[in-house]
Amino acid sequence: MTTPALLAIDWGTTRFRAYLLDSAGAVLERVSSEDGIMAVKPGGFPAVLVIRCGMWLARHPDLPVIMAGMVGSRNGWVEAPYRQCPATAADIAKVMVSVDIGNGRLARIVPGLSTRDASGAPDVMRGEETLALGASLENGTVILPGTHSKWVHIENGKIRSFASFMTGELYATFLAHTILGKLREEPDDPSGFDRGLEAALRPGGLTHQAFAARTSVLLGDMDGHAVAPFLSGLLIGSEVDAGLAMAPTGGEIVLMAEGIIADSYARALAARGKSCRIVSTEGCFTAGLARVLQASEQTEKV
Amino acid sequence: MTTPALLAIDWGTTRFRAYLLDSAGAVLERVSSEDGIMAVKPGGFPAVLVIRCGMWLARHPDLPVIMAGMVGSRNGWVEAPYRQCPATAADIAKVMVSVDIGNGRLARIVPGLSTRDASGAPDVMRGEETLALGASLENGTVILPGTHSKWVHIENGKIRSFASFMTGELYATFLAHTILGKLREEPDDPSGFDRGLEAALRPGGLTHQAFAARTSVLLGDMDGHAVAPFLSGLLIGSEVDAGLAMAPTGGEIVLMAEGIIADSYARALAARGKSCRIVSTEGCFTAGLARVLQASEQTEKV
Repeated sequence: MTTPALLAIDWGTTRFRAYLLDSAGAVLERVSSEDGIMAVKPGGFPAVLVIRCGMWLARHPDLPVIMAGMVGSRNGWVEAPYRQCPATAADIAKVMVSVDIGNGRLARIVPGLSTRDASGAPDVMRGEETLALGASLENGTVILPGTHSKWVHIENGKIRSFASFMTGELYATFLAHTILGKLREEPDDPSGFDRGLEAALRPGGLTHQAFAARTSVLLGDMDGHAVAPFLSGLLIGSEVDAGLAMAPTGGEIVLMAEGIIADSYARALAARGKSCRIVSTEGCFTAGLARVLQASEQTEKV
Repeated sequence: MTTPALLAIDWGTTRFRAYLLDSAGAVLERVSSEDGIMAVKPGGFPAVLVIRCGMWLARHPDLPVIMAGMVGSRNGWVEAPYRQCPATAADIAKVMVSVDIGNGRLARIVPGLSTRDASGAPDVMRGEETLALGASLENGTVILPGTHSKWVHIENGKIRSFASFMTGELYATFLAHTILGKLREEPDDPSGFDRGLEAALRPGGLTHQAFAARTSVLLGDMDGHAVAPFLSGLLIGSEVDAGLAMAPTGGEIVLMAEGIIADSYARALAARGKSCRIVSTEGCFTAGLARVLQASEQTEKV
């Protein structure tokens, strides 16, 4: 049986996921639960860890334990302050925060990163730094779609900067709470997506083009079934256009997503003449934490 | 006593407002109630008109009656189909729709207008065409801030085109339903507005800059009290930038607004190097309907 080399924990807002990794970063065993940090009472983090991973911890008393994600936020186990960009895996490894998981045994928490865009506006991420490090990219951009999408700029293997977009949150909010949502009919007609992608390039910006969609339905130019895909295309197209404008030119584009989200972003990128490599979130998480562990061990040796 | 020349009715979604005007368009008497079209049952429109204006109608049996606003929409008294731009006051007067208000007496309803922007995206307005005609503008742009702001482009006194922006609706929705609203503290600190105006010019667009505001609060760069004014500045700044880009160059800018909304838009325009003339909604409504009446009488004479 392979000896495990790392207990890697992805502890987010709504989910707890733990992986027993070998020295090559391959997953030997996994566990997953709904013990996201929102579900854990103050002081309750060590107990959750023991309930979910106690057998692994007992079986491997010297196994390194590293956690990433919202567990290091103000509402998590302990706050791991943001590390400023640019940052390598070694920079991140150096400022991990340790917590006692019982009997003096320590686990480490990966800090989030902060940056400022060209205009000085600040940005932060927590969890995505680990995912981006796991994307095995030397130069280019890692796109992580989501409620608050991240575009992570990689230069010579280090995280140079990044930018967030409220795409997922706005999509849900528009459909739930604006005039556009009232016009939506289900099932969705996916042909609306390409119309939204085109609209993102048109004059007037997001709030004009979103209203134009409403008018198109009113005038019979667009079907209610196309509304949600149109909005998705408009928002993702706007994100892709702004994201590409802020990203370093050249280099590879890596898209970390699954299913329809992966399809939608790949389609939006293709409409702007860009190809991408699609990678899985789990694979990047485990590879990213393995890289942080390796960097911390090299630092210790120096 | 001055003889009235027109009963001008502004019948919108939530309000009913009627004005007895003299031949110069001055208000002799006015009445206002909450009988907006949402509050009127199907078939109930003639009765509301009699309740609110019956005495005027009886006193002046030959007085022309013209109505504008959502009363001419699908959910109003009768649907007055949109007239395509470009449109003069005479064009609009020619396609008014008549309704019987009792004993064969007729009132006329002003139609809304439709247009397409440079990219072919459709737009409509209803009520704002009358207001814009009342702004006494020969060449330039009339800005009507609101839930769905309108920028109306005037060329040689006619409405050439217009563009809508969901600014007011998005402001309310962001504060009520997104992560930004959770960070808002009251009372508002108006200094956030200018920061929002600047952010509208920065890279990344609305969804990136809105997220940056959230991060600024998180990092202590911005106070929770500045959040709502920042968002207002970001949305109005974005509208003004897109609106100016779509508007004909040159000509006067007329801003139809009151109070803090007028202040905010004037400030946003000034930040982009533009001055404006501020006019009142009521004055433009009565002047606009007087102009439509005049155009209809001239047409009849021909």
